[in-house]
Amino acid sequence: MSIEVKIGATASRSKAFSSEDVNVFASVSTDLNPIHLNEEAAKKTIFKQRVVHGHLVSSLFSGILGCDLPGEGTIFMEQSAKFLAPVFLDQTITATVEIVNIREDKPVITLQVVATNEEGVAVIKGQATVLYPPLNKLKA
Amino acid sequence: MSIEVKIGATASRSKAFSSEDVNVFASVSTDLNPIHLNEEAAKKTIFKQRVVHGHLVSSLFSGILGCDLPGEGTIFMEQSAKFLAPVFLDQTITATVEIVNIREDKPVITLQVVATNEEGVAVIKGQATVLYPPLNKLKA
Repeated sequence: MSIEVKIGATASRSKAFSSEDVNVFASVSTDLNPIHLNEEAAKKTIFKQRVVHGHLVSSLFSGILGCDLPGEGTIFMEQSAKFLAPVFLDQTITATVEIVNIREDKPVITLQVVATNEEGVAVIKGQATVLYPPLNKLKA
Repeated sequence: MSIEVKIGATASRSKAFSSEDVNVFASVSTDLNPIHLNEEAAKKTIFKQRVVHGHLVSSLFSGILGCDLPGEGTIFMEQSAKFLAPVFLDQTITATVEIVNIREDKPVITLQVVATNEEGVAVIKGQATVLYPPLNKLKA
């Protein structure tokens, strides 16, 4: 995918996280919190069912930034995220990023990031700042 | 593990991320950025070698918060993270959280989070805010 790097440019990715995805993420992250893994334990929480790790959902942004917009060569500098609503297994989540600032002096880009569920409810909102060295080349 | 939930309380976890961990995370997150996966492509970047996804390293905080401090029942509300230095394969990273605020009116806890490498260099610094419903019980 090749999207022009400019203010207002957007890119999205969608994914439904399976039970297997969550189990695998729990293993590599060491986050074995039963609310994510154990259906019986999760039933006793306010969510009443297993919840996908917020960090796993949020990683969709990392995929967009590193692969789609701004794309290859991107280096993550900063991310903030508010977790607004739970994400359950097999719900399709759409993550979207939008460029809101490009620094004039350095190849540093700020993006608003939002993830929504199938009902259009925002589950994560935040901001990411990335270094995008190819921008130097674009401007040269 | 059971650590008293109070200002100044800390907890840590350490992990070295293997090539397999990074490959698995790439798959579940959809982040197939070659800087993480492809040694030849990574050699051409400023880091000269494969880099662990920042979101994967950052997920250590999720494990600590949900399992150790404040512990089971924790719900993530917000996280900010600055990615200060790259993390390479098989480097042991130690993530530490410290409670810096506990709200009086609600069971909401704010923690400073930091991850350091084997040389003691901070690779991630940030802040997390979590809802910890058991706090209501502690205070009752």
